[in-house]
Amino acid sequence: MNINQKAVNALRILSADQIQKANSGHPGLPLGAAPAAYELWANHMNHNPKNPNWSNRDRFILSAGHGSALLYSLLHMFGYEGMTIDELKNFRQFGHLTPGHPEYGHTIGVESTTGPLGAGVSTAVGMAMAESHLASVFNRDGYPVVDHYTFAMTGDGCLMEGVAYEALSLAGTLKLDKLIVMYDSNDITIEGDTSTAFKEDVAARFKAFGFQVQIVEDGNDIESIGKAIENAKADKERPSLIICRTQIGYGCPAKVGKASAHGEPLGEENVKELRKFLGWENENEFEVSSDIYSHYKKIADINADKEARWTEMFERYCNEFPELKEKWNLFHGELDTNKLEDEAFWSYETKAMATRATSGDIINKLKDMYQNLIGGSADLAPSNKTEMKGEGFFSPENRSGRNIHFGVREMAMTAITNGLYLHGGLKPFCATFFVFSDFMKPMIRLAALMGLPVAYVLTHDSIGVGEDGPTHEPVEQLAMLRTIPNLNVFRPADYTETAVAWASAIKSKSTPTALVLTRQNLPQLEGSSREAEKGAYVLSEASNKENIDLIIMASGSEVELAINAKVELEKEGYSVRVVSVPCMDLFEIQSCEYKEFVLPSYVKSRLAVEAGSTMPWFKYVGLEGDVIGMTSFGASAPAGVLFKHFGFTTENVVEKAKNILKK
Amino acid sequence: MNINQKAVNALRILSADQIQKANSGHPGLPLGAAPAAYELWANHMNHNPKNPNWSNRDRFILSAGHGSALLYSLLHMFGYEGMTIDELKNFRQFGHLTPGHPEYGHTIGVESTTGPLGAGVSTAVGMAMAESHLASVFNRDGYPVVDHYTFAMTGDGCLMEGVAYEALSLAGTLKLDKLIVMYDSNDITIEGDTSTAFKEDVAARFKAFGFQVQIVEDGNDIESIGKAIENAKADKERPSLIICRTQIGYGCPAKVGKASAHGEPLGEENVKELRKFLGWENENEFEVSSDIYSHYKKIADINADKEARWTEMFERYCNEFPELKEKWNLFHGELDTNKLEDEAFWSYETKAMATRATSGDIINKLKDMYQNLIGGSADLAPSNKTEMKGEGFFSPENRSGRNIHFGVREMAMTAITNGLYLHGGLKPFCATFFVFSDFMKPMIRLAALMGLPVAYVLTHDSIGVGEDGPTHEPVEQLAMLRTIPNLNVFRPADYTETAVAWASAIKSKSTPTALVLTRQNLPQLEGSSREAEKGAYVLSEASNKENIDLIIMASGSEVELAINAKVELEKEGYSVRVVSVPCMDLFEIQSCEYKEFVLPSYVKSRLAVEAGSTMPWFKYVGLEGDVIGMTSFGASAPAGVLFKHFGFTTENVVEKAKNILKK
Repeated sequence: MNINQKAVNALRILSADQIQKANSGHPGLPLGAAPAAYELWANHMNHNPKNPNWSNRDRFILSAGHGSALLYSLLHMFGYEGMTIDELKNFRQFGHLTPGHPEYGHTIGVESTTGPLGAGVSTAVGMAMAESHLASVFNRDGYPVVDHYTFAMTGDGCLMEGVAYEALSLAGTLKLDKLIVMYDSNDITIEGDTSTAFKEDVAARFKAFGFQVQIVEDGNDIESIGKAIENAKADKERPSLIICRTQIGYGCPAKVGKASAHGEPLGEENVKELRKFLGWENENEFEVSSDIYSHYKKIADINADKEARWTEMFERYCNEFPELKEKWNLFHGELDTNKLEDEAFWSYETKAMATRATSGDIINKLKDMYQNLIGGSADLAPSNKTEMKGEGFFSPENRSGRNIHFGVREMAMTAITNGLYLHGGLKPFCATFFVFSDFMKPMIRLAALMGLPVAYVLTHDSIGVGEDGPTHEPVEQLAMLRTIPNLNVFRPADYTETAVAWASAIKSKSTPTALVLTRQNLPQLEGSSREAEKGAYVLSEASNKENIDLIIMASGSEVELAINAKVELEKEGYSVRVVSVPCMDLFEIQSCEYKEFVLPSYVKSRLAVEAGSTMPWFKYVGLEGDVIGMTSFGASAPAGVLFKHFGFTTENVVEKAKNILKK
Repeated sequence: MNINQKAVNALRILSADQIQKANSGHPGLPLGAAPAAYELWANHMNHNPKNPNWSNRDRFILSAGHGSALLYSLLHMFGYEGMTIDELKNFRQFGHLTPGHPEYGHTIGVESTTGPLGAGVSTAVGMAMAESHLASVFNRDGYPVVDHYTFAMTGDGCLMEGVAYEALSLAGTLKLDKLIVMYDSNDITIEGDTSTAFKEDVAARFKAFGFQVQIVEDGNDIESIGKAIENAKADKERPSLIICRTQIGYGCPAKVGKASAHGEPLGEENVKELRKFLGWENENEFEVSSDIYSHYKKIADINADKEARWTEMFERYCNEFPELKEKWNLFHGELDTNKLEDEAFWSYETKAMATRATSGDIINKLKDMYQNLIGGSADLAPSNKTEMKGEGFFSPENRSGRNIHFGVREMAMTAITNGLYLHGGLKPFCATFFVFSDFMKPMIRLAALMGLPVAYVLTHDSIGVGEDGPTHEPVEQLAMLRTIPNLNVFRPADYTETAVAWASAIKSKSTPTALVLTRQNLPQLEGSSREAEKGAYVLSEASNKENIDLIIMASGSEVELAINAKVELEKEGYSVRVVSVPCMDLFEIQSCEYKEFVLPSYVKSRLAVEAGSTMPWFKYVGLEGDVIGMTSFGASAPAGVLFKHFGFTTENVVEKAKNILKK
């Protein structure tokens, strides 16, 4: 057996051993796709195991994340830091580097968390966009300092998912020629033959997107795979799809070609048969002979050399273009948050404005402060107010455009935004109507899980949408986002609070930020302040602050209502505090003292007002308080009519307040 | 001007007038697509305005729901009940039949609520599947009692959305030859030229799916449109796409071909210009001459005749096949819920079982009780336990299969399930892992908004997923679903509660039901009962029920934990009640007396335990209580390790309980 074959089989055996020892996992893909993965990682991908952070490395995303054992085997064999044989032995165990699905930030060498099908390949599109944009910003003649490929490995499942369709259709439109998708086509899904649910001509579909498409008929033929990868690289106009026809569970006679190979351990006996088939009978569990390790090491050393050559070029580049060196550092270092202290950032005209328009103004300040800010909308930029004026739109003709036309593709947009960040060098945001955060949800969750400080501009945030009606009026979306761990959800009430929200998004290092913004105009509030950074704060103090009768809490467009109700109640002799709550998530992490200061325990009369689900507020109003919110879907009518119909009036707030006070 | 042209222009003018009067709406599509819509409704679609419920009518879905003014104009001109000229004058006003986007159940003649792009055409796929399935069940030689087409009208936006891709790829696989998609291709989106974000070869893409594809180069040429529709009908093997090249805002010189035509009123002046262009200067606002009304009426009468002929055939059919008549009535009437009182439905083996397995057993009882139960999974049937044994899988070769291979397409699955129900005659469900309800969310919302009593089987409901790790472990999904208005979310604890959940889903007439089920085994609980129907009930009473020290609330897998903790606490002399909360939504609608009985106000010491977000529980535990839940994402490890790590142990519940009791 030649060394390449042995190297491939080492991946297979290590994968099978991991899964068998854990008694849990997915052997099907690792056994079938090991040759393609090996050929790619060994002979076509620039990556330096000694420095997984090399900015110009090729990116690899295992979109079929359930095949994680294969990725861990690769990382182990190439000598990535921390990925010892002991970690492989602890596959899927608590506190180890080898979780069930690959996790970014947890395991060195994992470029993105994957598992939910379609997410990885969509994220890869974002990475390829980032590469292309940064290349246009930084590269100069003879200095291709940003010049790498992005590889994604997908299975049938990924390609059935709508998010992958959306992202790859955009990839074709944008001619992302350095995106190379490797499709492990094994004709098997969990429910049986892929053809039961997926008979489309995948090659023709991708050609329709504008992809180069190649088919490798024998997924064990690494020479053909290698040629296909080189052809893909050679195409300077189109992204590429390489269809590798493989057999799920290859090498395991009882499992090959069967759905049962996908997601269950092979079983002790079948692992034995696999070892026999692959000529691996003399090694113990998790044992790989030293010649194979040496072979991998040799490749790793060649790759270290590649980085060394790049570093040498980069040093010359920095000498020749000191201004670009400075810009590079701005892009690749931490953002300078001192800039946010500029008075200009916090100053505004004292006129009523929709917070979406306010956000638009702020974005246009930020674009000059942070030149690596990049983003766009799912075909709603004029409504979301997200266009960075004068910065152009990213396109095949204009790679330096900082605005992105995502098209009507909310989910892919969100995954791509993850990819833009994960690549490194950029601070991305994306935007749509708040109600369509429903379509973004699975990818927002991944951003939160990965800890990516991206931003979401979500406008038209309530029944204030008005005439477009219930399909376009968010109700439960605030609760949906607020329950995602590690996501800061802001619903600001005016300019100052919107600026706080954006400043928080800029400062964030490992938490995504959602900005939930109005369609309709809101006044600039007296009393709003940068205290909003604490998530909740006293915006309007009670007349007798030592003896508060009632606290009214509100966010966004309802803060004005709370203030108006307070005025009425104070006229009747009540002492009423108004607390603005722009971000529950940040309020939660304040000190107990601060929380007690804002919401003193002795005040049991509490009322919350928000044009969304009531659920998030019970934590603060308790059993004795009340919430004015939405308990049904909205309706189609002018916004003013709806606010009145659904009880968002001063009169109703006053009445509900009195009901509480009477208790 | 010939009468057809006048009839087309009437639709345009009425649409423009509606939008102008409301000063809100989307004129672009109505002006461009009026000829195609007219030709279809007038000359190719079987529909009887006098009986919009005719079971064998052709279905029409305006997937580009923002073009609602066009649909209302059609309904008005054809004389659909209620759609008076006054309703058109009250476009987008509160309490009228003409909301911003079409709403099913609100406006007669609207087959599905649309607006979120991609949803409508995906729902249409479900309708076409329903037609095909019911045809195979009911049709007999010479009696095509189920024999109609499903038409969807889409724009660019719909076809960019992933959900539409997913659904249409499946439509091709399933060879739904009676699905005809009309694509209003006007090259314009909100952000400008469609080509900025969507350059794919749509015709080639659909051919790759297995569609017949035709292009009508001039969207004003109704003769060509008519021929294309007839060609589409003639294809008995493939679904069809008809690409109509149109001009957005046709007829309005200042707006034609511009993005601004999409979503803003044309403006008074431009409406005048439109009237001039269309030869409509002599009529007042909302005025249509009587010859045009007569023309539409003539067509409506022809259609009434079509139904009469069908009815005559159906009567002969009923006489000839009395057993099919009976079956038809079972399918098309209300479900016989008395069957749910059968002892067999409620009986079970007293062994530990995962609720997903329990649900699987129940589904296999229900399939015989309700022969119109139909459903499937997004490629996870073996895990979701949803296969109806012996009922076959729906496919081009087996239209009578009641199991559906949806493929890895959670969002389209959910939209298709809406369509299966909306068609009439079927009781559908669909299934995936609970964490992937994220992908279903936008379409679940539409089901809830439309009031469709479909069911969702959502298994692997917590960190109990174990080794697959945080990407596969739901945390915030319970809160996400519980905040959707008009959705019953069940998280049952054992067989009895799972049966209650399914019985509730069967009984439901206008509310979808989510069944959130465990991967891991749970014991059959002593004390669980059909009281679960009330959403929450006393499962284990306190030793001193007149003087309760503490209430522990829990759902699903954590009920057992609550009971174990109670036992420990009672040993120490506390009087502790355990309340099982399988469905908060149903508990909320119980009487105040019942709620007070279950959760007496005097008991302030309350603890909730659920392996999900804490947010939903504060409404019940108040400021003095506590919640043991998930405040972070999960991790990859065996389930037992995770439950312990995240505090779901008897010890921790006892400790937290004591902390509350000490307050």
